[in-house]
Amino acid sequence: MNATEQRERKPRADVERNRAALLQTAQRHFLRHGVGTSLEAIAKEAGVGPGTLYRHFPTREALLAAVLQTRSEELVARQSDIEQLSDVGEVLEHWLRAMEEYFSAFSGLPDPLMAAARAQDSDNPLTIPCDIFITATDKYVEAAQLAGHVRATVRGYDLFLAACSIAWIKGNGADEESLDRLRTLIASGYRDRNEKS
Amino acid sequence: MNATEQRERKPRADVERNRAALLQTAQRHFLRHGVGTSLEAIAKEAGVGPGTLYRHFPTREALLAAVLQTRSEELVARQSDIEQLSDVGEVLEHWLRAMEEYFSAFSGLPDPLMAAARAQDSDNPLTIPCDIFITATDKYVEAAQLAGHVRATVRGYDLFLAACSIAWIKGNGADEESLDRLRTLIASGYRDRNEKS
Repeated sequence: MNATEQRERKPRADVERNRAALLQTAQRHFLRHGVGTSLEAIAKEAGVGPGTLYRHFPTREALLAAVLQTRSEELVARQSDIEQLSDVGEVLEHWLRAMEEYFSAFSGLPDPLMAAARAQDSDNPLTIPCDIFITATDKYVEAAQLAGHVRATVRGYDLFLAACSIAWIKGNGADEESLDRLRTLIASGYRDRNEKS
Repeated sequence: MNATEQRERKPRADVERNRAALLQTAQRHFLRHGVGTSLEAIAKEAGVGPGTLYRHFPTREALLAAVLQTRSEELVARQSDIEQLSDVGEVLEHWLRAMEEYFSAFSGLPDPLMAAARAQDSDNPLTIPCDIFITATDKYVEAAQLAGHVRATVRGYDLFLAACSIAWIKGNGADEESLDRLRTLIASGYRDRNEKS
C-alpha cells in the first residue's frame, strides 16, 4: 500500500460510514415522522453536517429512494412468489395488495410516489421503482384480461393509481373495514362482468 | 348615538374589515400555493398581525373552513339541481362528481378533509361540511340501492372516500384520461351486477 492509497482509504471508509448512518437515521425518522420529516434533524442525529447529507442525497426523493431500496427489492422478490399462484386474477389481486403495502411504508409516501409516477423521463429517483411497478401491473392486468378476468378497458396504470390512493386513505387513518370495502369495490370495478366464476 | 356607541363602532368595523381582508387574501393564497401556504404571509398581505389572524381563525382548518363556506353553500345548492334528475343512479353519479370538484378547490385540500372526516365529534371546523357530504352520499346510495342500481354492501362513506381520493390523484397531476378510467372503474365497482340496463 503506497502513501496515496493510505490517504484515500480513510476518507472512503468515512464516506461509507456516513452514508450508512444517514440511511439508518433517515429510515427511523421517516417511520416516526413521515416523509416530510426534517432533513436537518436527520443529518444532526447521524452526526454529519447538512452539506454531507446533500452530497450523498441531493434531494429528499434521493434519500427516500435509497431508504426504500431494500423494500423495493423485497417487493420484487415477492413478485416471484405471487406469480406462482395458479389463478391470474388472484396474481393481480395479490400484487395490488403488495404494492399498497409498499406505498404504506411511511406516512405521506403516496404523495412523492404519485409525483414521481407522473414525471416521466425525469431524474426523480423515485420514478424508477414506480416505472417498475406500473410495468409489472400492466403485465398482470394483460394476463388477467387474456383469461377474461379483467375488463378490456382497464390499464395497469389505473390500478397502480388505485393501490396508491388506498394507501393514501389508509395513511389518513381510515378504518380497516372501510378500506376492505373500497378494495372490494375496486376489484368489482376492474373484474369482467361477463366472467363466469 | 352616545359616546360609548361611538367608541365601539370603529373597532367593530375594523374587526369586520380585517376578517374580510383575511378571507380574501387566504382564498388567493390557497388557490396559488395550496392549503399548506404560509399563514404569516396571508396575515402580512392582509395588513394585519399574526395575532389578529389567530383571533379570527385559531387554526389553519378554521381559516380553510371559512374560505370554503361559499363553495360549501354552492355545493348544497347544486344538490337540489342534482336531485331533479329522474334516475337515482345518475343522481349519485352527479353528486360524486360535484363532491370531487369541491375537494379539488385547492391543491392539497383532500388531506385536511380526510383528517376531518375521520375525526368524529371533534371541534375541527372541517368536520361539519364532511359530515354533511357523507350524510348526503348515504342518502343517494340508499335511494340507488332501493332501485337496484347499487350493490347492497356499498356505504356512502366508501364513495365519499373514493371521490376524495380521485381529487387527490387529480391534485397530483394525473391526466384526465386516467382519471376518467378510474371514475368508470369505481362506478362499475359500486353498480349492482344484476342491474338490467
